[in-house]
Amino acid sequence: MLLPTIQQPEHLKTLSVEELVELAAEIRQFLIEKLSVTGGHLASNLGVVELTLALHYCFDSPSDKMIFDVGHQAYVHKILTGRKDQFDTLRKYKGLCGFVKRTESEHDVWEAGHSSTSLSAAMGMALARDLKGGSNRVVAVIGDGALTGGMAFEALNHIGHEKKKLMVILNDNEMSIAPNVGAMHNYLSKIRSDRHYLRAKDEVESLLKRIPAIGDRLAKTAQNVKDSLKYMMVPGILFEELGFTYLGPVDGHDLGKLMDTLRQADNVDGPVFIHVITTKGKGYHPAENDSHKWHGISPYKIESGQVLKSVGNPQYTDVFGATLVELGKQDDRIVAVTPAMPGGSGLIPFSKEFPDRMIDVGIAEQHAATMCAALAMEGMKPVFAVYSTFMQRAYDQIVHDICRHNANVMFAIDRAGFVGADGETHQGVYDIAFMRHIPNLVMMMPKDENELRHMMYTALEYNDGPIAYRYPRLSGLGVSLDEELRTIPIGSWEKLSSGEGCAILAAGPMVQLAETAADMLKREGVQVQIVNARFMKPLDTGMLDQLATSHTAMIVLEEASQAGSLGSAVLEYFAEQGAYDAVVSLMGIEDRFIEHGSVEQQRAEVGLTAEAVCARVRELTAPAVGARNKRSVSS
Amino acid sequence: MLLPTIQQPEHLKTLSVEELVELAAEIRQFLIEKLSVTGGHLASNLGVVELTLALHYCFDSPSDKMIFDVGHQAYVHKILTGRKDQFDTLRKYKGLCGFVKRTESEHDVWEAGHSSTSLSAAMGMALARDLKGGSNRVVAVIGDGALTGGMAFEALNHIGHEKKKLMVILNDNEMSIAPNVGAMHNYLSKIRSDRHYLRAKDEVESLLKRIPAIGDRLAKTAQNVKDSLKYMMVPGILFEELGFTYLGPVDGHDLGKLMDTLRQADNVDGPVFIHVITTKGKGYHPAENDSHKWHGISPYKIESGQVLKSVGNPQYTDVFGATLVELGKQDDRIVAVTPAMPGGSGLIPFSKEFPDRMIDVGIAEQHAATMCAALAMEGMKPVFAVYSTFMQRAYDQIVHDICRHNANVMFAIDRAGFVGADGETHQGVYDIAFMRHIPNLVMMMPKDENELRHMMYTALEYNDGPIAYRYPRLSGLGVSLDEELRTIPIGSWEKLSSGEGCAILAAGPMVQLAETAADMLKREGVQVQIVNARFMKPLDTGMLDQLATSHTAMIVLEEASQAGSLGSAVLEYFAEQGAYDAVVSLMGIEDRFIEHGSVEQQRAEVGLTAEAVCARVRELTAPAVGARNKRSVSS
Repeated sequence: MLLPTIQQPEHLKTLSVEELVELAAEIRQFLIEKLSVTGGHLASNLGVVELTLALHYCFDSPSDKMIFDVGHQAYVHKILTGRKDQFDTLRKYKGLCGFVKRTESEHDVWEAGHSSTSLSAAMGMALARDLKGGSNRVVAVIGDGALTGGMAFEALNHIGHEKKKLMVILNDNEMSIAPNVGAMHNYLSKIRSDRHYLRAKDEVESLLKRIPAIGDRLAKTAQNVKDSLKYMMVPGILFEELGFTYLGPVDGHDLGKLMDTLRQADNVDGPVFIHVITTKGKGYHPAENDSHKWHGISPYKIESGQVLKSVGNPQYTDVFGATLVELGKQDDRIVAVTPAMPGGSGLIPFSKEFPDRMIDVGIAEQHAATMCAALAMEGMKPVFAVYSTFMQRAYDQIVHDICRHNANVMFAIDRAGFVGADGETHQGVYDIAFMRHIPNLVMMMPKDENELRHMMYTALEYNDGPIAYRYPRLSGLGVSLDEELRTIPIGSWEKLSSGEGCAILAAGPMVQLAETAADMLKREGVQVQIVNARFMKPLDTGMLDQLATSHTAMIVLEEASQAGSLGSAVLEYFAEQGAYDAVVSLMGIEDRFIEHGSVEQQRAEVGLTAEAVCARVRELTAPAVGARNKRSVSS
Repeated sequence: MLLPTIQQPEHLKTLSVEELVELAAEIRQFLIEKLSVTGGHLASNLGVVELTLALHYCFDSPSDKMIFDVGHQAYVHKILTGRKDQFDTLRKYKGLCGFVKRTESEHDVWEAGHSSTSLSAAMGMALARDLKGGSNRVVAVIGDGALTGGMAFEALNHIGHEKKKLMVILNDNEMSIAPNVGAMHNYLSKIRSDRHYLRAKDEVESLLKRIPAIGDRLAKTAQNVKDSLKYMMVPGILFEELGFTYLGPVDGHDLGKLMDTLRQADNVDGPVFIHVITTKGKGYHPAENDSHKWHGISPYKIESGQVLKSVGNPQYTDVFGATLVELGKQDDRIVAVTPAMPGGSGLIPFSKEFPDRMIDVGIAEQHAATMCAALAMEGMKPVFAVYSTFMQRAYDQIVHDICRHNANVMFAIDRAGFVGADGETHQGVYDIAFMRHIPNLVMMMPKDENELRHMMYTALEYNDGPIAYRYPRLSGLGVSLDEELRTIPIGSWEKLSSGEGCAILAAGPMVQLAETAADMLKREGVQVQIVNARFMKPLDTGMLDQLATSHTAMIVLEEASQAGSLGSAVLEYFAEQGAYDAVVSLMGIEDRFIEHGSVEQQRAEVGLTAEAVCARVRELTAPAVGARNKRSVSS
């Protein structure tokens, strides 16, 4: 076994290519075994075993900067940089992060989670190097899916212009999380499949010599043609036109060729684009055969590839997907738009039923949002299905194109709240704070999956501008689903129980938490009022006015950034009113990034537990404190 | 005169090409005259006179959709669609908007202000047309600068894949607002200058025929070469590779050729990319000679081109620019990063002094932000100089790459607050609301240009993460500038005057407004306390605690979205404390988009005036109201 001898990248350097091939096999076996227990991003990591080995063999981390786009394909990098023994804790609370993590290792120089940032990072590092007079290498590894993100193009455009020495390695596995779309994908496919690109250059040279000497009139044209021809034999002309030296395509599982190419790239004084063809899931048949399913995988049986799924209630995502099909049958104006997440967003059923009305734009949240505005302005009813965290990419387009146009766009915001194992880059905890202040927007969150269905219908029936419903990553509560859908009055909250003293205004899954807390308090003889604060905007001001006089305290309970979210909106409303009775207390997420773990652990870490709610209620309703906080209203 | 006869685009259709040429000259004269009085975007509009005429001549607005990227080059479109007589009110309060505006005309189908949205809009409209079974044309006009924005690439990638029938017209004037940068620009330049691209195709065909018949071994290569060669003769191969039919380059001031090309494009069943070469400022020598200066221009003398500038205090932007040069001399880690706004951001002096440390990335806010994170992580001190409204494009990168990495990036946020004539797409009123909830960020705003200098120094000395200073578009107050720069303690506010009863917590230019109000109130015998609330984050909680007991009322006064900004932060803090004395009242910008006009008019529209502040103070300190609102604190 070679793997146990590799604690740091320098331990690779004495190995022969044959030994590296052996090591690659051991690493694959290691990944397949470890991830069968923990789950994780198996397919993409199996695809980059040789590439990561070649990088660490040819270059010198950490002085050479290795940047992994997204960073979920850095498991092999982690194995080679001293973190092999931590894989039992992968993506678990306080355990090994599923992405690149600077606090874990000096070899981790750039963190991500969202795609398409690596080229900008590489450009920044190359610029800093040159300004400081350094000589280290800068290498970015980016997938073909991530390459379609607009910011990757912005970086290519800048890199190709500035001509700094750096390497962009395209890890082309012909797909991202979903089957890849887009003209760039078609272009890359052509390079891969067009054998004449790979024909030996000397054949072309030989042909060029056969063009006879010709008269003056055509001489210059002929020269240009000859120049052009040589140029044409470079397959990646698009990247050459953008200022890069293109190398490839090279087989990403051939260690010798990979290393040759890296060394060749290292001799180029300027930006190099290395096109590496890899197979996602390489070396593990179930993953090779269905790499989408195996992109991020739950624990599985190694022999059969059978995924060990816990049986639970249907997820919100699934209820969304099924309901959208129902609505799509009733209303042919509905168009579903996804930025490369048809599966994750539950849109596969819709795409099968209505292929023409299912638009996957690739990793392109900005374009998706603005295109939705235009679809709406032309009378369609677009549903922008997007994860809360990825919607951050479209903030400007939401302000400038959707809300300023007051376009009838529906937002289906999935993964709202904590997301668990993906951790801090993926938490859906800011969308209320970054959307609530945008004029014309309506925003809601259901207390259960049945209410989600009514909200979807409400959004469809609403024709006065943009409207968003957000829902968590979790399973639903298992409630029964009403067949007949109804509209919920815009801005109406729902009283779920009655009680004196303290009212809890809870949103989404926090309603359930409030109910658990209420049950606990009931045993102490304390009765609290629970309100399903299902609209983040507009607020139910009628109910707020009423609660402000009927109750001495209110808690706004939400799984969202405490700064700027629903609680903040409630405070603003009361400040506008000038006079009110009740103390308003906020329970949200404190002002820091929350790392990976289970959703329960993440909630516990920030005090979003039934126990904490009980404690807050006791605090606010204790006779002494109650008196201290009581606001007197004379009129 | 032909112009008076054109009230609607259909009036063009009976004109001959010669008459259209005459009309073009009349339109130029009209623009030069009208804008000499009102100011506006002269150069870009002079550049698109023929193009706009050709579009309205060949196609049928509004059933055919004409989408103008950014939209400040739509003056000619406005002239041709019945708005000629409103040009005296251009960019004035309640007057003609400087951008495309749907409420002005049915011919205005897509509004913008931020760049690079037109291709996504076109794709959405083409999709909607095909889903509805329509047959209208969809035409997007985009500048070469806007083409570098990432979302434009996202859209190209999608359009080239879906193959819907639509036209993208590249209005290539070799520059955007600043000299264009980027590999795409270099590529377009090559097309423009490389004469062999323009050589007649038959010459090439003739040459190809001269390649002799050859043996089997090379036959297939020869065929491929012939195919490739034909392909190579298409200049815009990059766009062809992305799935477009490329037409051009065509002289954008030759009406006949333009119309031929548009008709040719109309026969293509799929996406067409039409490359039109125009001259910014065409037909008016001062503007042709310095089109950057004449991009957006103040009133001027027509004969001399002399710009009539009101003499005033130096602008915040200029103070920023000059101070950055000072700091740059002291600290060679400072790197200035601009997304295509070196002039507007006051960075020309810095770029002259430190050309290597001045990075213009093109219109690419996302890339700029992420690159700044990487620069900071490698020990540089990047200053991301950006307008508040354009920073919206980088929200995700600020969260995910800058703040999550806690990178030492300095944000110089210009145009914070109302911006005047550019109107609703450019208001800098959301940055506090969309940044305040992001962990690790410090955010401040100076009361005058002298304090801005100290804040810049404070930011430079601060090494614990990202730090932002925001400042208005306006002239400074004319205060004297301290030579020696000092650090301002992070999170410290400043008491500017003392008074009982009501304290006004004001930020930025609102401090001056508060002072005016205080003077007015003084005459009534009311003394208010004014606080320079110069940190939006962190708050000066010590001062807040003190004010809450020493005063009965506080007003948070800010030129920012009332939802989610500083006022909201103050309310959250007090809610966290549980008990406090004072009533907190918010004066910010209400929940709607505010249109163009002067900054004073915009402030008046939302009640940010000294009179309104006085009224609010009176309301809060009136004996009856005071008693009603008084919160009793027992401890």
